[in-house]
Amino acid sequence: MIKAINHIGIAVKDLDASIELFKKIFNFESIHKEVVADQKVAVGSFKVGDVLIELTSPTADDSPIAKFIEKRGEGIHHIAFETDNVSNELSRLSEEGIQLIDKAPRPGAHDMLISFLHPKSTNGVLMELCQHQE
Amino acid sequence: MIKAINHIGIAVKDLDASIELFKKIFNFESIHKEVVADQKVAVGSFKVGDVLIELTSPTADDSPIAKFIEKRGEGIHHIAFETDNVSNELSRLSEEGIQLIDKAPRPGAHDMLISFLHPKSTNGVLMELCQHQE
Repeated sequence: MIKAINHIGIAVKDLDASIELFKKIFNFESIHKEVVADQKVAVGSFKVGDVLIELTSPTADDSPIAKFIEKRGEGIHHIAFETDNVSNELSRLSEEGIQLIDKAPRPGAHDMLISFLHPKSTNGVLMELCQHQE
Repeated sequence: MIKAINHIGIAVKDLDASIELFKKIFNFESIHKEVVADQKVAVGSFKVGDVLIELTSPTADDSPIAKFIEKRGEGIHHIAFETDNVSNELSRLSEEGIQLIDKAPRPGAHDMLISFLHPKSTNGVLMELCQHQE
């Protein structure tokens, strides 16, 4: 079951410059910075209400985020939805005819398990499912 | 002050087909449908946790959403942030050097006052500020 929006991922070229810009807009008090080696990205995340905004910049030319920015420019990259069990949701959605990018959960930022659905079957929206690990 | 994410707008071609698709994914019990004449769009909105997802389709060829879809395809269109006072935020952000699309609040869906910031000054993210009317 999908319970809530966990975070919104925003693709940016220069993480530190974007953190400075978004601090002006949102006045956040603290920001969590993390490198996710598996996805070749650096992430700066802060909360707006109960939802995290994840500013995400590439750490390598072949990072998926580098390719996204090259093709579409900076901007909103994905929405992540929180669920109790990513595996169960992947099975359910696959049966509903939704195309998956990840057939099984893999490690993401904030020590969560994550999987992406294919935007071709969700009206062009890149959706991530995520789950806190016990 | 920006307090929370109110909604995420998703540009879709066929509102009814998208409602059917998103119902499969999110199992929402009810959906609010509304036409916003001022913006030439039809909106179908449902809640995921505390945040609304607004599926938005054009009602005319010169709708901003029609132009967006023509240029970028279907997908995430904007993020709307809730504030106590849109006018005050517009003044504050303008002083911070953020470019505005709307210099003053105007009527939006759900009987709210809304204004858009220019994505050129927010890393390509189209941001809406919104405010419930008393």
